[in-house]
Amino acid sequence: MSESTAAGALSATPRTTLRRGRDKGRVAREDLYAVLRAAFVCHLGVDVDGVPMVVPTVYGFDDDRLYLHGSVASRSLTGPGATVCVTVTVVDGLVLARSMFEHSVNYRSAMIYGTPQVLTDQRDKLDALRIVSEHVTPGQWDYARRPSPKELAATTMLALPLDEASVKLRSGPPDDADSPDAELGLWAGELPLRASWQEPVSDPALSPAVPPPPHVLALAARPA
Amino acid sequence: MSESTAAGALSATPRTTLRRGRDKGRVAREDLYAVLRAAFVCHLGVDVDGVPMVVPTVYGFDDDRLYLHGSVASRSLTGPGATVCVTVTVVDGLVLARSMFEHSVNYRSAMIYGTPQVLTDQRDKLDALRIVSEHVTPGQWDYARRPSPKELAATTMLALPLDEASVKLRSGPPDDADSPDAELGLWAGELPLRASWQEPVSDPALSPAVPPPPHVLALAARPA
Repeated sequence: MSESTAAGALSATPRTTLRRGRDKGRVAREDLYAVLRAAFVCHLGVDVDGVPMVVPTVYGFDDDRLYLHGSVASRSLTGPGATVCVTVTVVDGLVLARSMFEHSVNYRSAMIYGTPQVLTDQRDKLDALRIVSEHVTPGQWDYARRPSPKELAATTMLALPLDEASVKLRSGPPDDADSPDAELGLWAGELPLRASWQEPVSDPALSPAVPPPPHVLALAARPA
Repeated sequence: MSESTAAGALSATPRTTLRRGRDKGRVAREDLYAVLRAAFVCHLGVDVDGVPMVVPTVYGFDDDRLYLHGSVASRSLTGPGATVCVTVTVVDGLVLARSMFEHSVNYRSAMIYGTPQVLTDQRDKLDALRIVSEHVTPGQWDYARRPSPKELAATTMLALPLDEASVKLRSGPPDDADSPDAELGLWAGELPLRASWQEPVSDPALSPAVPPPPHVLALAARPA
């Protein structure tokens, strides 16, 4: 990690220096973690013969790296040094303004550029899987059967440094309260959107005697 | 639209022919529309000097084309014929299996490849904006002030043909009910995730005398 990121700021390279919506940009490292904590599916963009391919996949992270399942992407990451872009987006609601032009979306988004490492060491892969699992479903790693060596070999895990990233977000009411459009007398405001876990649905093939374990019930009761 | 798409099937080119998870692939055109109806934010991947950039943006669609805000992307779409990838993903929940290896996500996802057209005709841009607005917030187009010519000029709209697309989805319980792992006696099942609209939040700058209009209340009461 460079000095600047160690000090809490994300690096600013031309592609992560926001050209639009500078006011929406956030650069503190903690803001990046906050966005990454708020979701578990990212969109991974890889270049395939000059054409971008964007695939959704689950992820986890530690202080320095993002870990993600990379089976689809990895067949495209043939050359060493290929740069990918991972975007995580949480949609918080609609911003309904007086004019169509001022309509917007409240959201939190992180964009990470980097060269992913395809993990080959068994221990590293297992660690990465655990990190992803604990991020998506805390407690499940200690509950379910862990990967066998054969299963581990069949799993592709990528590690992407969190060194080059940007965070954008928008929150709050529309921006046209002070504009001449306010005189139109129209309603304006936010329509919040929230994701929530529902009650666990047991596998129909399961014996009814097996209840959902506490960590699953705890997750279901938590805000998503 | 080609004959095959008119007949209800999406085209199968090498990049939309699924190499993994073939059983999860859906090819009927109606399945594409169903995924597009279920969300309003997509992830647009564009190639910038050989590096993919993935940006979230709102969209709308008609039978033949996807329409999207393209301000961020358009500066990269300099060359004619640049292919983009648009991915729309709805996460429906977690699939918690007996083994970590069988863990999965229930989701619906569409991936569309194509060369977007940057709309220049005022009428086309207005139509595209209306289609996006009506998709995201039905009724708002007839309620809020529509774009002025100046605002329209400042808006970049892209149109992407829906000719080359693939749909993937997974639903239902884990796949390991018939495996030896079933004898572990562990709970397994689904943890559904659902997005829902919350009560509209009026702009604090708004006179309290203006209530949310019926179409906003109707949207808030609808499943997201």
